[in-house]
Amino acid sequence: MIGCDCHVCHSPDPRDNRLRSSIYVETPECSFVVDTGTDFRTQALRENIRNVDAVVFTHSHTDHVMGFDDLRRFGAARGYMPVYASAETMRDLERVYEFAFKALNPFPGYLKPEPHIIEGPFALGQTTLTPLPVPHGDSKVNGYLFTRDGRKLLAYLSDCSGVPDEITKLIVDVDTLVIDALREKPHPTHLSVGEALEVAARIRSSQTFFTHVCHELPQSAEAALPLNTHIAYDGLKLDF
Amino acid sequence: MIGCDCHVCHSPDPRDNRLRSSIYVETPECSFVVDTGTDFRTQALRENIRNVDAVVFTHSHTDHVMGFDDLRRFGAARGYMPVYASAETMRDLERVYEFAFKALNPFPGYLKPEPHIIEGPFALGQTTLTPLPVPHGDSKVNGYLFTRDGRKLLAYLSDCSGVPDEITKLIVDVDTLVIDALREKPHPTHLSVGEALEVAARIRSSQTFFTHVCHELPQSAEAALPLNTHIAYDGLKLDF
Repeated sequence: MIGCDCHVCHSPDPRDNRLRSSIYVETPECSFVVDTGTDFRTQALRENIRNVDAVVFTHSHTDHVMGFDDLRRFGAARGYMPVYASAETMRDLERVYEFAFKALNPFPGYLKPEPHIIEGPFALGQTTLTPLPVPHGDSKVNGYLFTRDGRKLLAYLSDCSGVPDEITKLIVDVDTLVIDALREKPHPTHLSVGEALEVAARIRSSQTFFTHVCHELPQSAEAALPLNTHIAYDGLKLDF
Repeated sequence: MIGCDCHVCHSPDPRDNRLRSSIYVETPECSFVVDTGTDFRTQALRENIRNVDAVVFTHSHTDHVMGFDDLRRFGAARGYMPVYASAETMRDLERVYEFAFKALNPFPGYLKPEPHIIEGPFALGQTTLTPLPVPHGDSKVNGYLFTRDGRKLLAYLSDCSGVPDEITKLIVDVDTLVIDALREKPHPTHLSVGEALEVAARIRSSQTFFTHVCHELPQSAEAALPLNTHIAYDGLKLDF
């Protein structure tokens, strides 16, 4: 954190050096990102990402959308970039990135979004994404369940302060759960470690990764977590 | 640049590794930034910046404003963050960062901007900033002249496609000119190296630094530039 002298912000463990949360998904058919936070360019350079066929948004908070314009590098060949978001999030994206959505810039190579409002499960290649609307304080955020060939591979819940029973039912027994766990201490808009563990137990995921972790939770805290429960870190790669 | 295999993008010279353009100004009375681009958090962490008393904007393109929310770390103590911008840029900031300007978020520690519309020279501590409106393609961008004790210390023109005579007159004989020089080849919204050199010759600056440089202009190109003309790099520090 800017201007912070705590031991996590000055940790020698590179995994304690964290950028904004997002995921990049590669499938045999296509590749896509979930969220383009402020660090998107830095992350794309670090991982040498060469292809983004679509972007899916969880919500419109700054740490999830402010790198959107850097998608221009990936939309240029096709001429447009498919954007998947809830109606509310799309409205915010259209307001913030007015120049892109209104195609105000005539220069070639600029980002031209192709909006897709999410109203239920949708497919990107042969992956089905099921939106998982969850509370994030007073707002609503889309998590996503990723299914292929009928297998529940991944549930991604980056920002939530709770997981309602109807969402738990959709993702019960998922292979991998990636879930918000900001810190040990409760927070009004994010799950704490204890709350995230309680959700994971209900979901009975085979493995669980904490994301959106703040500097109050060092990577070393993983040692005290249950078996198959981990703290995710920047650059972590998972195979399915 | 994302997904680029050119020799500058893979240069062993760390100065060829460039984030978005901005400057941080420290004076005996106060400290401020000009622009908070998408990389602002990364830059603030790298330079261990502990104090930002105000932010001044040149214009509202994404590479100059998308790190704005990360100023929250600096406004918390005072309770608000003074924001200086032209009326047009402020309108864009208010649209993009609606939640901050409308104080929609009640949590402590969130960014609370205090807008100051720039209509002429203004003071930050004992530094006078004179706006220098210059064309940037079809739009208008504010450069700034920084004066202390009547001395013209610095003219900062980060984004311009030309420098009109009336602006040249304001900054002639400035100590240090920092000026847009995207690359050798002409560009519709940025000065080329040749155009920037021609402007610098008219201004008769004691020293000149090129900024907003793209991957078509390596740091090594500095060797071919006139005496006292340099290519700026990330982390460059100048004393006045």
